[in-house]
Parts: sequence; C-alpha cells; structure tokens
Amino acid sequence: MIIDCHGHFTTAPAALGEWRQKQIREFEESGARHSPDELRITDDEIRAAIENGQLKLQIERGTDLTIFSPGAGKMAHHYGDERTSLDWSRVSNDLISRVCGLFPERFVGVCQLPQSPGDALPASLRNSVVELERCVEELGFVGCLLNPDPSDGYYQAPPLTDRVYYPLYEKMVELDVPAMVHVAMSRNPALQGTCAHYLAGDTAAFMQLCESDLFKHFPTLKLILPHGGGAVPYHWGRYRGMMQDRGRPPLEESILRNVYFDTCVYHKRGMELLLDIIPAENVLFASEMIGAVRSVDPETGRRFDDTKYTLDSIDSLSDTERQAVYGGNALRVFSRLDGVLKARATAAANAKES
Amino acid sequence: MIIDCHGHFTTAPAALGEWRQKQIREFEESGARHSPDELRITDDEIRAAIENGQLKLQIERGTDLTIFSPGAGKMAHHYGDERTSLDWSRVSNDLISRVCGLFPERFVGVCQLPQSPGDALPASLRNSVVELERCVEELGFVGCLLNPDPSDGYYQAPPLTDRVYYPLYEKMVELDVPAMVHVAMSRNPALQGTCAHYLAGDTAAFMQLCESDLFKHFPTLKLILPHGGGAVPYHWGRYRGMMQDRGRPPLEESILRNVYFDTCVYHKRGMELLLDIIPAENVLFASEMIGAVRSVDPETGRRFDDTKYTLDSIDSLSDTERQAVYGGNALRVFSRLDGVLKARATAAANAKES
Repeated sequence: MIIDCHGHFTTAPAALGEWRQKQIREFEESGARHSPDELRITDDEIRAAIENGQLKLQIERGTDLTIFSPGAGKMAHHYGDERTSLDWSRVSNDLISRVCGLFPERFVGVCQLPQSPGDALPASLRNSVVELERCVEELGFVGCLLNPDPSDGYYQAPPLTDRVYYPLYEKMVELDVPAMVHVAMSRNPALQGTCAHYLAGDTAAFMQLCESDLFKHFPTLKLILPHGGGAVPYHWGRYRGMMQDRGRPPLEESILRNVYFDTCVYHKRGMELLLDIIPAENVLFASEMIGAVRSVDPETGRRFDDTKYTLDSIDSLSDTERQAVYGGNALRVFSRLDGVLKARATAAANAKES
Repeated sequence: MIIDCHGHFTTAPAALGEWRQKQIREFEESGARHSPDELRITDDEIRAAIENGQLKLQIERGTDLTIFSPGAGKMAHHYGDERTSLDWSRVSNDLISRVCGLFPERFVGVCQLPQSPGDALPASLRNSVVELERCVEELGFVGCLLNPDPSDGYYQAPPLTDRVYYPLYEKMVELDVPAMVHVAMSRNPALQGTCAHYLAGDTAAFMQLCESDLFKHFPTLKLILPHGGGAVPYHWGRYRGMMQDRGRPPLEESILRNVYFDTCVYHKRGMELLLDIIPAENVLFASEMIGAVRSVDPETGRRFDDTKYTLDSIDSLSDTERQAVYGGNALRVFSRLDGVLKARATAAANAKES
C-alpha cells in the first residue's frame, strides 16, 4: 500500500471559504460568532471536489491512500481569538471527516488544531487538546497539524519545545498520534508562503528540537517535518557540527528517534539528497498534493508534485527501504492507521452482508 | 588564486565587544552617544587575532584571500536608532580596514551597513549609501553585507525588492559592488541564529527576488546568497514550478544573471547538490570561517567549515569550473577586487624601492 502522508483539502467547495470570510468579517465588525451550522456543503459537492482533484491524481499516479488534512495555509491562526480558531477548526475537521466517510478506502484524517497567537496561546492549546481528542476518538483521525507560528509569518510564539505545548504533547502521547509540524499562511510580505515561510518554519522547528530536551521528556512523541525538512538535509553537516560544538548527542540519538521527514521535494536531485542523508526509516512518502506547485515539469513531463514518479526513478533504495518509505513507516508513525483501516473494512463488509 | 568570499572578523579583540556593550547601554540609559574615539585596539592585538585565527586557517587549508567583513550576527541592527547603527558600522568597518592594511595580500574588505528597523529604515538606508561610498572609495572595500531583517528575527522589514532599498541599489550599481544578503543575530527564541535564522533569511530573500522585477530595474545589480542559498538548491524544483505556475520567466533568466550562491555547506552531499543544481558560474567559494561551526568532523578528520577540503573531494567539476568557483567568479562579481589587489601590489613594490 502506497500512503501519501501529506495531502490537504485545498480544493474544498467554495462554501467553505465563504463561511470563513463571514466568520472573520462578523467577528472583526461586531465580535459576533458566525455559526458553524450556517455551512452548507452537499455530499455531491464533496464528491466532485475529490473525484476531480485528489482522487483523480491518486489513481493516475498509483497511490492508494492519503493522510488528509484541511488546507494548511487556510488554518490562518492569527485571525480572531481562540474561539474563532476553535469554530474554524471544528468546521474544517468535520469536512475532512466527511471526505473520509465518502472515500473510506482513500482518505484518513489528520486534524487542524485551534491554535491562536499571543496571549491566547495557552488557552488555544487547551482547546487543541480537546479538539485533538474529539478528532481521534470520535472521527477516527490519526494525527494533527501543529503550527509553530500561529502569528502567521512573524514567528512570535515560543519555540515548540516550550512547556506551554506540553499538555498537547501529553495528549498526543496518550492517544499515540503524531503531529506534522506545518505553518499556516504568511501575512508577512517579506515571507512568501509556500516557498519561504513553509521552508523557514520546517527549518526553525528542527533547530528548536535540536536545542532542547523535549524528547527526553516525551520519549514516544512523534513529529513529522514536511517539505523534506525545509533546509535541514541540505545543511546536515551544519547541524551535526553545531550539536558537536555544543556537546550534545548526535542527531541520530537526539532527534531521529522521534522526527520524520516527508518527501515533498520537487526534483530528483533534491529527493536523492534527502534519501542519502536521512535514514529510510525516518522518511515518509508524501506529495503535498494538491498544493504548492501545480504545473507540469517540462523536463519530466510529469507534475512537479508527482513525487511518486520521482521516487520511482531513484535507484539507491533497496526494496525493503522503498516499501518502508512508501507505506511501512507511515503505518508505524501513524500507529492508529492500521486499526482505522481494518475497522472501515469490517464496516464495509458488514454493510454488504446486511 | 583561491578566494574565500565569506569570512567574518568573529575573533575581533575583546575591546570591540566592550565598546559595543557600552554604546548600547549608554544609549538605552540616557540617550548618550558613546564616542567611536573611545575604542582602543592596537595593531598587535589585531595581528594576534588574525594570525591565530583566520590567517592560520587560510595557510592550513591553502586558500589565498578572504573577502572579510565584520561579524554578521554582531551587526545586530535592532539596537538603538539609526545613529547607533551608523556609529557601530563605522567602528566595525574601520577595524576591517585595519586588518586589510596589516595583511594586504590576505584580506579585502566588505562593509556592514548601518541599517535600522521600523520607522528608521529609510533614513538608515540613506546612511547606508553614504557608508558604502566611504568604505568603497576611501577604504578600498569591494562590497557590502545587506541585512534583509534589521528587526533581528521577526521579519518586520519590507522585502528587499521594496523601493525603499532603491537608493542603495543605485549606489551599488554606480560603484559596481555586490551585496551579500546576510541576516544578523536573532533575538527571537523561536529562531536560533546560525542554523535557523541564517537559512530562513537566505531562503526568504531568494523568494522575494523570485516574486519581483528588481533585476529589470537594476540589470547589473549583483547579490550573493550565503550558506549555499539556505533551502533553495534543495528545493529547486519547487521554485521552478512556482515560477512556471505564475507565468514568470525561468530562474536562469530572471534570477541567475544577478544572483550568486556561496559554498558554505558543511558536508559533501550538500555541496554536491549545490554544484549539480546551480551553474558553476553562479557559485563562489566560501567557508564562513571562523563562524557558525568550529569543530572537527569525525567522519573526515577536517573541520566542518573546511569547505576547500570538501570541494576538492568532489569530482564532478571540470578544471575550468573549479577555477571559476575558486576565484574567477569572485573576481568577476567583486569587480573592484582585481584593481584593489593591483594597487596594493604597486604600493608594496614602491615601499620596497624607496
């Protein structure tokens, strides 16, 4: 089974974006709460969005399952207050749950968390614990997106290793679910979103982890760095040297027991570097589709984000390693995934029988 | 001639740092200006700092010349006001000039600019024009460091492509000197300096350039991205795809006529990627010594920042390409360098004769 661990519902029906605009506007104008009940999206609209989008590409490329989350940029945690983020997260996550219900063999959910910046951060993280638990226990989700910069482009939150995040990590460990560390939009004109802020966020988060003892406190915590880990594998020597300069344990011991990298690197030479530097057991197949880059690479005739094509073209992996990257690692890191898929298969068999 | 285009005077005598601390403290406490005349550093102190530091490593590694600038982190542009930055830049640049005077065959200067964040940005850029002209015309410097984030870790300045920077670019073009785009310190606990903020700054700056028509306005402007360009070569496909998605010209046309990458990548696989992706004519040899990482890599027995050792171990370059990376490109990009070296040689010959 080929599992794409990084897909967003960027093609959600327009009603979702309209609901969000109203939510933001009404709160800014009068402090009013736009009700989640106001959102109207039919199953047919969801089917059309998925069948003409992510599912079509899954079939074309020969991948089987996508770990699916709300649009990352659209999390936009800086708007409103912690209740704004909570309502928006519930709406977004419920929509992902409906996608999973309509395409149970093709999508498994990962939730957005209702984070907020500034003074609202601690309360928003308490809400995040509750929303994570709801999504995992009630909706069958297998992980979450954790935004290291809820200020959306100004890096005004404490590092992810700060104790303010510990209640969330305690819940993640208890539920045995990983987080993909993924920034949202950038509202900073100096930091473009998908090609600057995303990669800066990945890189900053890795260095936060390098400087801390977070994994001593949470030895079973699992974090995934998307976009091939930002700048990290390319600068692996810099990180190795910095750890050594500071008398800290090597990255293999201090980081790689808990941190995973996805394969969202959109050219063969970059992907080769990733696979040469990061042990295969720490790499999860992913495409980020439909996402940052959408066109066809004239050099290959395939879409830039067709990372399966790229990964297939790389010979350096053994069969065992390739299977691990394509699915085995995802089943290990998203440890609830296998159970979710089996429960769905049983439900489908039961439905057929009755 | 092997030219290291990226070295900082991180080993400056302690009196420099003490002067800076007093400058900051006196301004914060009473608005007073600590006089540049208060700084006392002897030639012997400078000689000791260089001979036991950068020069020793030059000789050990077999490099010939370092393009030398003040400590980048220590530029710390967020302190005080634009006058604070101006005084500090003059002090720092004058010290670099003394290094060059004492070791004329080994060091050529690149200046720090007196940038400031926030409302002081425009005035600080006007001061930067004056300081750049002073350093180039009077001190024989060949370029400058340009900080894309004078807020030091919060990315609160407009992109480098904003018109507020245009007076500086006009002067750079007039003088025919390049800028290395280099952030200073980070005062943001979420963004460690050398392994997060530095790489984020490089990546953000590249994307700012990709989104703009800066080089249409300044076709002869030359910018150098340090640290191998942050995350950029590793994510080259992402940038190619993004440019294509937006209907913009390819990177070769829009960026690579004006932008250069240094070789501060501290492991062989990373350096190989850089040289595979970025045309050799756009790559400048550099080590960043003595800088971010100082210890010896147990895998090679050489210091992590011994990029000459790493570059020598890479076979994929032709002799012509290797010569270009080691020196030819630097002589082209720092177009005043050859004249500066010849003038120094003439001066030395005249001094001998008389």
